[in-house]
Amino acid sequence: MYTLYLANKNYSSWSLRPWVLMRTLDIAFEEALVPFNDPDPANDFARFSPTGKVPCLVDGDITVWDTLAITEYLAERHSGVWSGEAKARAWSRSASAEMHSGFQALRSLHPMNVGLRIRPHAASSSLVRDIARIDALWQQGLEAFGGPFLAGEAFSAVDAFFCPVAFRFQTYGTSLSPASQAYQERLLGLAAMQAWQAASLREPWRDPEHEQEAAATGEIVQDLRGAA
Amino acid sequence: MYTLYLANKNYSSWSLRPWVLMRTLDIAFEEALVPFNDPDPANDFARFSPTGKVPCLVDGDITVWDTLAITEYLAERHSGVWSGEAKARAWSRSASAEMHSGFQALRSLHPMNVGLRIRPHAASSSLVRDIARIDALWQQGLEAFGGPFLAGEAFSAVDAFFCPVAFRFQTYGTSLSPASQAYQERLLGLAAMQAWQAASLREPWRDPEHEQEAAATGEIVQDLRGAA
Repeated sequence: MYTLYLANKNYSSWSLRPWVLMRTLDIAFEEALVPFNDPDPANDFARFSPTGKVPCLVDGDITVWDTLAITEYLAERHSGVWSGEAKARAWSRSASAEMHSGFQALRSLHPMNVGLRIRPHAASSSLVRDIARIDALWQQGLEAFGGPFLAGEAFSAVDAFFCPVAFRFQTYGTSLSPASQAYQERLLGLAAMQAWQAASLREPWRDPEHEQEAAATGEIVQDLRGAA
Repeated sequence: MYTLYLANKNYSSWSLRPWVLMRTLDIAFEEALVPFNDPDPANDFARFSPTGKVPCLVDGDITVWDTLAITEYLAERHSGVWSGEAKARAWSRSASAEMHSGFQALRSLHPMNVGLRIRPHAASSSLVRDIARIDALWQQGLEAFGGPFLAGEAFSAVDAFFCPVAFRFQTYGTSLSPASQAYQERLLGLAAMQAWQAASLREPWRDPEHEQEAAATGEIVQDLRGAA
């Protein structure tokens, strides 16, 4: 049985990717949620993760400490992780890897905070560029492989890589092309995404660093989380 | 036949990865070198790369525009791209993906410039951390899988992912543990690395942006490149 270490669902965009992938593909795993900045030394991320970061997948004596590496590890063992069609698979890996190493403006200026709705400050040109690129990528995948998911009929890892973006766009009310907006809604409507969101809203923790980061992006117009 | 688009060998650390991998594994390809900031509109990276970045692998009607995606594309078609042993492969993918999305301090403060030797300014704590992490990763791989390469006996993609780091450490005279230093020298001694270095030194171009970036890191003590 796999163990997937992850952090707060409300904040941890990297954790969401393997979680939503495994849940949606029905790959069984045990979830080990360790909140950010927990004072308990037993909850130091370095205890289970060689980088001190999450997510981290443990399978017996094998530890896989990065989202793309986890994805490929699962792809060797389960069907449906990537599209079965070579061209769609090459596109999916390129788009996922682009997300993995890029989009710094989106990451820092539109941090994931599932429970908040924010009216953002005017976007910098680098943020506008990141959003436009994602919109173009989504339209390209949907058109090239026929939808309704990025690599065609079935939800696969490339969709999982963009699930955190769907939450970001929801929080900041980002405008998208009609095709991309419909796709964003499709992601938000997935059972696994609904479950992640519900769990986010129930979390008791408020990590000051993540809360300040979100508050700095604009005006918080709604906080859907229960009282701490 | 594959076409690999890449930029100046002296500067383009991302281009080096698939190039050294394919050369060392004897995977045939045609090289299309397009220099940075070339005024010729035919040499606009956007003409062949959907992100406007290099490297980019073209195989018939399939374009693969990211180093990790290129690696996985090749791994589906050629043996030896990753280790044949599951545990070493999981480790290799984790380490390569960590390099792919991380080490921002190393990237920005020790840019690759193959032909220069630089006495660097005192290292920031983030740079010291990045170097220590790479040193630890290298020692871990060499020890866990028996060397002389990171995943064991044979050179594979995880070594290719750290080849640009070997050039960086050469340029900045970085101190490493004995095991890591021996590994760095092993990488620098590869036929493909020697060929890349020789080609770097012969390049006629001096891109002001990349030259200024390097000059800002410390005192240039040697420039091994031929006169422009």
